[in-house]
Amino acid sequence: MGTERAFGTVAVDAMGGDHGPSEVVRAVKLSLEKYKSIEGIVLVGNENLLERLIKVEGIHKNPRISIYPASEIIGMDEKPIQSLKQKKDASLVRAIELVKDGKCQAVVSCGNTGSLTACGILKLRPMDGVERPALATVIPSKDHSFILIDAGANPMAKSDHLVHNAILGNHYSKVVLGLQKPRIGLLNIGPEENKGNELTYETNKFLKKLNGPNLNYCGMIEGLQVFENSVDVVVCDGFIGNILLKTCEGLFGMIQNFLKEEIGKNPIRLAGAILAQGAFKKVKRRLDPEKYAGAPLLGLRGHVLKAHGASTSKYIISAIRIASQIVHYDLISHTTDDIEWANQIIRPHEAKPLTTS
Amino acid sequence: MGTERAFGTVAVDAMGGDHGPSEVVRAVKLSLEKYKSIEGIVLVGNENLLERLIKVEGIHKNPRISIYPASEIIGMDEKPIQSLKQKKDASLVRAIELVKDGKCQAVVSCGNTGSLTACGILKLRPMDGVERPALATVIPSKDHSFILIDAGANPMAKSDHLVHNAILGNHYSKVVLGLQKPRIGLLNIGPEENKGNELTYETNKFLKKLNGPNLNYCGMIEGLQVFENSVDVVVCDGFIGNILLKTCEGLFGMIQNFLKEEIGKNPIRLAGAILAQGAFKKVKRRLDPEKYAGAPLLGLRGHVLKAHGASTSKYIISAIRIASQIVHYDLISHTTDDIEWANQIIRPHEAKPLTTS
Repeated sequence: MGTERAFGTVAVDAMGGDHGPSEVVRAVKLSLEKYKSIEGIVLVGNENLLERLIKVEGIHKNPRISIYPASEIIGMDEKPIQSLKQKKDASLVRAIELVKDGKCQAVVSCGNTGSLTACGILKLRPMDGVERPALATVIPSKDHSFILIDAGANPMAKSDHLVHNAILGNHYSKVVLGLQKPRIGLLNIGPEENKGNELTYETNKFLKKLNGPNLNYCGMIEGLQVFENSVDVVVCDGFIGNILLKTCEGLFGMIQNFLKEEIGKNPIRLAGAILAQGAFKKVKRRLDPEKYAGAPLLGLRGHVLKAHGASTSKYIISAIRIASQIVHYDLISHTTDDIEWANQIIRPHEAKPLTTS
Repeated sequence: MGTERAFGTVAVDAMGGDHGPSEVVRAVKLSLEKYKSIEGIVLVGNENLLERLIKVEGIHKNPRISIYPASEIIGMDEKPIQSLKQKKDASLVRAIELVKDGKCQAVVSCGNTGSLTACGILKLRPMDGVERPALATVIPSKDHSFILIDAGANPMAKSDHLVHNAILGNHYSKVVLGLQKPRIGLLNIGPEENKGNELTYETNKFLKKLNGPNLNYCGMIEGLQVFENSVDVVVCDGFIGNILLKTCEGLFGMIQNFLKEEIGKNPIRLAGAILAQGAFKKVKRRLDPEKYAGAPLLGLRGHVLKAHGASTSKYIISAIRIASQIVHYDLISHTTDDIEWANQIIRPHEAKPLTTS
């Protein structure tokens, strides 16, 4: 499946993220050591600072590393459109421009999601036939990992957008999970067709039309099925996707803390937990999102990956690896054909005006 | 706070639920033993069967128990409206009619949620000023319990409905969690006002207007905050509420199974887990929804409680207790005044036609 191979030149926004540029530079160093197939990485941000940091890491003479200067930084709480208007020389903006100008094949940023999405749309533009990009994230479960799309890019989705999410998620799961025929499910309040809202009614109708060799649509699933290995791609709008992802993160953290606290209350429990620690570690490692820590913003004419703002180096390394896998798979070309095909089926009048008028 | 006291006469749909009428009858017996303040319980369903079951349980001479005959049963997968048209003598329908006719003060059912909601709306009618009822459920977390409203009754909510959910949840949390000034939060993709969709923009605007002595609105919260003791009432539409509740249930179950499986893989881990079992039990007991297993359908002119289809007797007992607490608090009268007040503020032109025209 080649999930450990990596390709292309990746622009990395070095100024985003809660841990600062030194964490990003460390991750870049380790990525280049680990993935020999990555052609190069362009660090984007404050030139003086980055030159110093790559010296500290001893990679200033590595021909696969270069620095692209950007004098401004977009903060995590800045408003997307306003931040882009005011900060033309922001690291996030310059990194995306490198992809736009063909100098890099993908961009990775731990910065402000809203600004990254807005800048991706403005500078790279959505693919033909796509209106709004979607954020895809891999969520690990007990016996499998699945993709949640959209995890928050488009909180006001229409049925066409959800159909595109299904196609984008289908291809992305082939790249990142190595699947041949991913099972696609539409998230709903029940698997029955009479349940849901207008958005799910219409999306389900469209996806049933598209079900076949190009798209293995398995119908609607309810919340209980999400972690049950029922499907590989969970399609939803960005509003519910974002809330679901964050709530699950919060619940998982709460359970961990609660158990730790209860175990610490008494030395016998603590001794028991030490004996059983292999089980805890296995569960934690398996459910840790590290391996798939980069969430691509799919549906644009360039590859943009969002890493969590709180990403430490291992998460940034994972995002860089995913970025280069996507470049290698040529995700955009693969997806473009399917989007065109789907639009012809779900919007026949718009797609073929000459034959219908 | 008197959370263990119980009042009123409760109609119990004895034919719904996955465990059948014998589980319901057992729960009724135990409820009457445990809550002396419940005046009576009317078991609704097949007369012959129920007479036999109350004899088996030795409660056939208990003056607090009576049977109301209903010859039909609505299945868990039947379509709501169709089921109500075809089965006029269904136990769920007859139980609701007992409330409508004033013979009982509340109804408890483990049956089909859609049919229960539809029948509640048709027979009992929504309160003045309320368009759609909402399902409220208590979710336990580490340091507190909170209410999620709506957990699935209204998957196509408008901003007015969400405002009503806030008011309904406010009063319900006073009854069931014993709070004086519950903190109300609106679920969104972030706490910032520029994030969200049209529904959250408008609802947030309305709730800010209502913030004051009657309603302690704390603003918007994101998924990460749900389990963090940020608010006592999480307001959302029934689509996201249902998906969130079920996904969390699935995630919690998956983590439990995964840990159990890993612990069982090796005798040392198993020994450790036995030593640490106090911690596991505490976490499981605290996060078990048993104590609040009945989800009321709020916003109707009568008290309707939904218990999970898979409820065992202890969950049904909890639902019966909550039903009688709601009756005692006189939830409907308390809520009606606040709904009227809120509607005058959010829809001034509609609420006061004489003064504005």
